[in-house]
Amino acid sequence: MAIRLDSRKDSFEADFQALLATKRETSEDVDAVVREIIADVRARGDAALYDYTKKFDRLDLTETGLAISAEEVDAAVASIDADTRAALTLARDRIAAHHGRQVPGDDRYKDSTGVELGSRWTAVESAGLYVPGGTAAYPSSVLMNAVPALVAGVKRIAMVVPTPDGVVNPLVLTAARLAGVSEIYRIGGAQAVAALAYGTETIKPVAKIVGPGNAFVAAAKRQVFGTVGIDMIAGPSEILVVADDGNDPAWIAADLLAQAEHDRSAQSILITDSSDFADAVEAAVADQLKTLPREEIASASWRDFGAIIVVDSLEDAPALVDRVAPEHLELAVADPEGLFAKITNAGAVFLGRHTPETIGDYVGGSNHVLPTARSARFSSGLSVLDFVKRTSILKCDPASLKTLSGAAVALAEAEGLHAHGRSVTIRLN
Amino acid sequence: MAIRLDSRKDSFEADFQALLATKRETSEDVDAVVREIIADVRARGDAALYDYTKKFDRLDLTETGLAISAEEVDAAVASIDADTRAALTLARDRIAAHHGRQVPGDDRYKDSTGVELGSRWTAVESAGLYVPGGTAAYPSSVLMNAVPALVAGVKRIAMVVPTPDGVVNPLVLTAARLAGVSEIYRIGGAQAVAALAYGTETIKPVAKIVGPGNAFVAAAKRQVFGTVGIDMIAGPSEILVVADDGNDPAWIAADLLAQAEHDRSAQSILITDSSDFADAVEAAVADQLKTLPREEIASASWRDFGAIIVVDSLEDAPALVDRVAPEHLELAVADPEGLFAKITNAGAVFLGRHTPETIGDYVGGSNHVLPTARSARFSSGLSVLDFVKRTSILKCDPASLKTLSGAAVALAEAEGLHAHGRSVTIRLN
Repeated sequence: MAIRLDSRKDSFEADFQALLATKRETSEDVDAVVREIIADVRARGDAALYDYTKKFDRLDLTETGLAISAEEVDAAVASIDADTRAALTLARDRIAAHHGRQVPGDDRYKDSTGVELGSRWTAVESAGLYVPGGTAAYPSSVLMNAVPALVAGVKRIAMVVPTPDGVVNPLVLTAARLAGVSEIYRIGGAQAVAALAYGTETIKPVAKIVGPGNAFVAAAKRQVFGTVGIDMIAGPSEILVVADDGNDPAWIAADLLAQAEHDRSAQSILITDSSDFADAVEAAVADQLKTLPREEIASASWRDFGAIIVVDSLEDAPALVDRVAPEHLELAVADPEGLFAKITNAGAVFLGRHTPETIGDYVGGSNHVLPTARSARFSSGLSVLDFVKRTSILKCDPASLKTLSGAAVALAEAEGLHAHGRSVTIRLN
Repeated sequence: MAIRLDSRKDSFEADFQALLATKRETSEDVDAVVREIIADVRARGDAALYDYTKKFDRLDLTETGLAISAEEVDAAVASIDADTRAALTLARDRIAAHHGRQVPGDDRYKDSTGVELGSRWTAVESAGLYVPGGTAAYPSSVLMNAVPALVAGVKRIAMVVPTPDGVVNPLVLTAARLAGVSEIYRIGGAQAVAALAYGTETIKPVAKIVGPGNAFVAAAKRQVFGTVGIDMIAGPSEILVVADDGNDPAWIAADLLAQAEHDRSAQSILITDSSDFADAVEAAVADQLKTLPREEIASASWRDFGAIIVVDSLEDAPALVDRVAPEHLELAVADPEGLFAKITNAGAVFLGRHTPETIGDYVGGSNHVLPTARSARFSSGLSVLDFVKRTSILKCDPASLKTLSGAAVALAEAEGLHAHGRSVTIRLN
């Protein structure tokens, strides 16, 4: 059973604050270990990668080589069934089409003073994609991380993926092929992040590292940040569903469980204006859990972090949603557009009764790498913008420089920066 | 004397790599102290701010209050001379005009499957601006940090600025007024960052913190990242000037010194295809240093970190520039546009012989908060985009859901996520 909050109760504000403050992750302090691993990879390069991979993945890279060859990828692509390959291809095409609309345009203009200004966008030269091994190895995530880089025009996309005991995931390799990944290395953990950031004899360094990983990977990304760019540090996934009693409770229950089955730390929240509907959803969740292969995980998530908030009126929902700032927001109400217009903080919104969040996970075309843990208050999902950077442009001629010179020199003098002023005045005749 | 590199020498590649690897900052390890301060502010709120301010700034906030009042700001605005006020106003207006062009547009469309997709941008609800006290208190930086937030539509801009011994900088307060800052608090250091991130009795928390600061401020920003958004962590400033012998050496020397006078860790690099011109610039630097009020700082920077790189041909410059990835890039050559087209990594470019970088520091209109320490390889200067976030939008109707259902369910099954599949199939009839 999830916890139930009632907006008519006196304790509601305190209960809601407690819900917001719930910690769903115990962040292991692995900083010291990770620091050692990174230093070792910087010092010993490939040899360090060989040692760590033998130790953590029980794999001898001197036998397999560091890189996964094009032939291995060919074989993986051929090995998966045609329907799955077609589904991955459709997903790739839809993600590429949507992300193509995110490519920012350059700007260049001359203003009334005659000064030329502008912004020019260029792709980062290279990107590294971390892909977890084991059960969390999702081919859809490979597409979601690599396709925006491809669309941005990144020339070199290097992927790292641990292959414990040498086991590779053919779906992941197929997704990498479809997404234009140009190099794949069978390494993982902090050592893989270090290799991407600093390079080794075999692996050239990249400019930016993206992709999810465990505590070691997250700590390594934080530590190499500055040397390279990184994407956000992802926390456990979450959904907030706002639903009125015009929904089939079973549909909403299915949506809540789709989030809960991700992992024990996932969170599913329902906001509704009907306590009868809340009861019906709760019953449907219990019912559907019975036939779920990942019942144990989904039950734990729903029991420990699930919440149903009953409000007097859906008018009360937007303020609550903005405080939760959910990664995924489903608006299964009569007027989803009207409700959405009153909400500002959400990573992604799924509008109406016929848009389960799962569509966004796979084939909608939008990105499923989204801000977690309330960070939608200040950040956005992964996009083409994460793989480009902007150079701002200024160009004066003698006349426009003269026009601006007085103010520039006045401010330089006010800040006590005389050489700044001189670089302007020396150009005036 | 700056070091001299010659591209015709055998040692050039090694010399250039050594230049790139030069450390210009010793990063103090203040993490533990900062962690304590943040915990204390979270626990004790205003009382902790009072204690730290008494200790570090020798100021009793119980006498002055935490906030700087509107009347104090009025007095500051009235106290500065009219020319400086006019220059700040011109800068504000030009920054606002240029940044107005950066506001991203929403996108909404229906694709061929009938699925609606989109992106909606909204401003962060609130932003906190850190402004250093003492000599590094630049009114121009207040404008550069706050105006993009104002243009983005941020409703609440809270500023913190330490006032050691109670001394306020009227230029900084005037800039804050011009930039639409809505609250100002007389606090600084890690305690001010903690107050902005977590809030106290007097200060409401913000969603994003921007602005430069010392090692304590930088460490505090890193530690609160995730709870709030932060901008980049700025390193010492730098310029790379590419100049042919068609320039007056004195102009280029002035530009190199404008960077060098910022602080001892600043870096000025010249790339030229003429060793005679290099000699002339070196002589002009020595000459101009004699009359510079900040001679000591500029000399140290030029001596310790300055570099002149002589290349065979300007054709060799773009590859070197991209490896340096300078914060500021000046192209004082006959064909600046042609050269710029071959370069990708630079925070800001200043084109031609009549665009000293100082124009960009103050009144050009572009932002002077730019990526340092080679991070222009993967990041951009401060802009409106730093104060907005994007919600991605998906909307299916029964028909388009059905169209995508097969592929979505195939991928959910391939990833072993049964509840994901069910949230789709349960909606099909």
